[in-house]
Amino acid sequence: MSNPTQTLTTLKSKLLEIRHLKDASALLSWDQETHMPAGGGQARAEQLATLQTLAHAKFIAPGIEDLLLHLIDPATGLANADADGLDDASKALLRETWQDFSRAKKLPSNFINRLERECSLAQQVWAEARRRDDFPQYLPNLQTVIALKFEEIDYLGYDDCPYDALLDTYEPGATVAQLQPLFATLRQGLLDLLQHVRESASPPDDRILFQTYDEQQQLAFGKLVLHAMGYDFNRGRLDLSAHPFTTAFHPTDVRVTTRVFEQDLPSCLFSCIHEGGHGLYDQGLPQEHYGTPLGESLSLGIHESQSRLWENNVGRSKAFWTHFFPLLQQHFPPQLGAVSLETFHAALNRVKPSLIRVEADEVTYNLHIMVRFEIELALIEKQVAVKDLPGLWREKMQEYLGIAPERDADGVLQDVHWSLGALGYFPTYTLGNLYAAMFFEQACQDATSLKLDIQRGHLLPLKDWLNRNIHQCGRQYSSADLLNRVTGRELSVDPFLSYLRTKIGDVYGFTNA
Amino acid sequence: MSNPTQTLTTLKSKLLEIRHLKDASALLSWDQETHMPAGGGQARAEQLATLQTLAHAKFIAPGIEDLLLHLIDPATGLANADADGLDDASKALLRETWQDFSRAKKLPSNFINRLERECSLAQQVWAEARRRDDFPQYLPNLQTVIALKFEEIDYLGYDDCPYDALLDTYEPGATVAQLQPLFATLRQGLLDLLQHVRESASPPDDRILFQTYDEQQQLAFGKLVLHAMGYDFNRGRLDLSAHPFTTAFHPTDVRVTTRVFEQDLPSCLFSCIHEGGHGLYDQGLPQEHYGTPLGESLSLGIHESQSRLWENNVGRSKAFWTHFFPLLQQHFPPQLGAVSLETFHAALNRVKPSLIRVEADEVTYNLHIMVRFEIELALIEKQVAVKDLPGLWREKMQEYLGIAPERDADGVLQDVHWSLGALGYFPTYTLGNLYAAMFFEQACQDATSLKLDIQRGHLLPLKDWLNRNIHQCGRQYSSADLLNRVTGRELSVDPFLSYLRTKIGDVYGFTNA
Repeated sequence: MSNPTQTLTTLKSKLLEIRHLKDASALLSWDQETHMPAGGGQARAEQLATLQTLAHAKFIAPGIEDLLLHLIDPATGLANADADGLDDASKALLRETWQDFSRAKKLPSNFINRLERECSLAQQVWAEARRRDDFPQYLPNLQTVIALKFEEIDYLGYDDCPYDALLDTYEPGATVAQLQPLFATLRQGLLDLLQHVRESASPPDDRILFQTYDEQQQLAFGKLVLHAMGYDFNRGRLDLSAHPFTTAFHPTDVRVTTRVFEQDLPSCLFSCIHEGGHGLYDQGLPQEHYGTPLGESLSLGIHESQSRLWENNVGRSKAFWTHFFPLLQQHFPPQLGAVSLETFHAALNRVKPSLIRVEADEVTYNLHIMVRFEIELALIEKQVAVKDLPGLWREKMQEYLGIAPERDADGVLQDVHWSLGALGYFPTYTLGNLYAAMFFEQACQDATSLKLDIQRGHLLPLKDWLNRNIHQCGRQYSSADLLNRVTGRELSVDPFLSYLRTKIGDVYGFTNA
Repeated sequence: MSNPTQTLTTLKSKLLEIRHLKDASALLSWDQETHMPAGGGQARAEQLATLQTLAHAKFIAPGIEDLLLHLIDPATGLANADADGLDDASKALLRETWQDFSRAKKLPSNFINRLERECSLAQQVWAEARRRDDFPQYLPNLQTVIALKFEEIDYLGYDDCPYDALLDTYEPGATVAQLQPLFATLRQGLLDLLQHVRESASPPDDRILFQTYDEQQQLAFGKLVLHAMGYDFNRGRLDLSAHPFTTAFHPTDVRVTTRVFEQDLPSCLFSCIHEGGHGLYDQGLPQEHYGTPLGESLSLGIHESQSRLWENNVGRSKAFWTHFFPLLQQHFPPQLGAVSLETFHAALNRVKPSLIRVEADEVTYNLHIMVRFEIELALIEKQVAVKDLPGLWREKMQEYLGIAPERDADGVLQDVHWSLGALGYFPTYTLGNLYAAMFFEQACQDATSLKLDIQRGHLLPLKDWLNRNIHQCGRQYSSADLLNRVTGRELSVDPFLSYLRTKIGDVYGFTNA
């Protein structure tokens, strides 16, 4: 076992086995959301808990630790002198595996199993409580989940702020100390922009988007755009589910879902493009590193940057619709035949504070995220009790968006995340938007013909740029390092605000403020 | 650990974890046949191999053996004195688990992995070779699989005949010594019947079945029959696949598939009914025993008895079509509006030797099985080399059915089984037919109104009888014991031959010979 290459090979074969268990879990979850008969839910929850507990137990078993300790200095988490002969990618593989291992080992298998079971239960109660607008029904389950998250924080530990322990799960390296000033600047920029929007004399009308649109035609158009984006249907498929999502079992089997409503054109359309962006990332991960961190996506924020880049920077741009709007008109002549490109583009970019995050425009979307981030922070810092969340939600919504929900179903109950135990997840959505703006700006600088390509419906050059610069890297670099390698800059809100001011200024008839 | 109930509880929790792994495997396989994008095949094969190897390794780990040895006498394989306080069902659970364990332990994990991989490969080559009618292309893979089966026989051991080791996998307790005389009697009976058919002056015409039938209407009718049979769509679903099959992940999630051809009415119809019979068995297994042998189906022969009973004894009977033919006519007025019940029933029961097993009528079907059984036996007893199988196939077909294939695609290459390593499987199809006749005869005796119910389209009394007498038993009894408990008889070909003589005599106009 003295040869580092041999050690690495043995380690990879063990990681591959765990990857297979996780892929099987992912298929069970996909099936649950798309095809599983209603009666199969209970058995499925138990099968999933077994697979996940087993994957965790196998990962933290002594075998993997022993192998890692041959090549890693546990004090730094970096490759040690025995690993000198290995290439940089292998050293990154070791570093990331050690990071995952160190984290996983802090969590007892018994805790994983309890968390999995309670979240599965909480999710079912949440769905029912949301339907019935009944927060008190859901309260005990949410309290249990939050208590488990406190337990998790204790296991994981933290340097500065307990919330960091959760955040780090989804966005390695991110901290409250980093996010708060970033979000403060962003908030001010967005509120200024919102003020301009409110004062505009010529706000767009988006009622054309909510006529009756045949569902099969909507799906056909969604597929057409996915094809154009380079989403490979030989290695993927599109299904329907209540909430759109993307899942992958290997770069050769990456599946996206959408939903379709007859009276809502943007819902199916932008779900397809958004999930297509996620799908391209997963299809673009390096197959030769499958089973190791180098074959995995970097973070939720980077993943979200891919979906938001396609959905917003591309899918809500005039360049994109220059080519695709005539095609959309061909799908829906009575509804759109007489509509101009400008009117359609303006409708897609209408800004209006609303209660539901997933329906929010690009300006108010991140204000929704800040509401959630601040509530989560208050929860974890014990400044608010779980039972008082509905009130705090109304307060924050009023403060940030100027509106507040009457029903909890449109407020604190709207998102599934907390019932899944996913606290610390929401900020990655905003990070995704910020990364997207920086990546897209850079792509346009690197390839000066990119906007023209998009105007002509040629989306593959953009896909190739993303493949090369982001997807192929897996987890070889940290988010900050990747951003720096690709754009030469540190994370900043400026590119996002600048992009948004230009577009929204154009649509609302005010100059770049 | 001295309390047998505690030991049993611990054992069950370990078995449940293994069950979950196997269920996940089953979902991966189902998905592969129904929804997986074409590019995902290689990764899926590896994921499946991992799950199956892991399930096997967990089963033969010392933990389970230790628990079993507390309550089992390894000399007899039966519960020992320490298990005295347990009920009969628990003792049966121990007996069956020990039997599975003893068998699994003989097979090294490394062998399971090799077999899984070679079969996955052989299956792909087989599909291609069949398409191209190219046996030599497939020969090396088949030779490898057969060599592995010899290795498996060596691991498993046998008393009398090496083939028994394979047979026992699929039909516990069955032996060559038992099958040969049974098959000899059956063969003579079928050949006599075939002679009567050949001499008939009024053979039925089945061309009405091969008109153009809308595929959606065919599927709608298939679903209608599945509903009537009591197949629960809240705990199941119907999909399309190249080869129809049934799979279950729990009694609350049992899925059937069919295929549909526009010019072939029987294909989709009888696939639905056949798989529906399998599906009712899996939906009817006792949920409280899920994870243990008592929650599993008894054998492939018993499973096949359920599908064949519904497909043939019910689905090709005049009683069944008395109710359902008018409904079928409503689905296809131009094709069937002017056809009489008698003509339709006769067409469904036309007997004609043909090359393809899955399209065979009830008289010649078992002759196809005997061809395969004798070839497998010759292989395992080293009386024929793998390379000489195409010739032997032609000889046997000529001998049994009076016809021989020109192309290997219609001969030795037609079935997937050998590429899956499933040698010893085919005889269970004939056993299924024999069991089906005995069960159906008994059901009609137990419930004198059963045939009248079927004539009225009331299929639930039969489903309930099968639930009570067969499905609910799981593996509590052996096949022979179950047959004896239900019918008071030992396995015999007489009920099957008698049933067939009556029906075919009726259709072909000769009296019960």
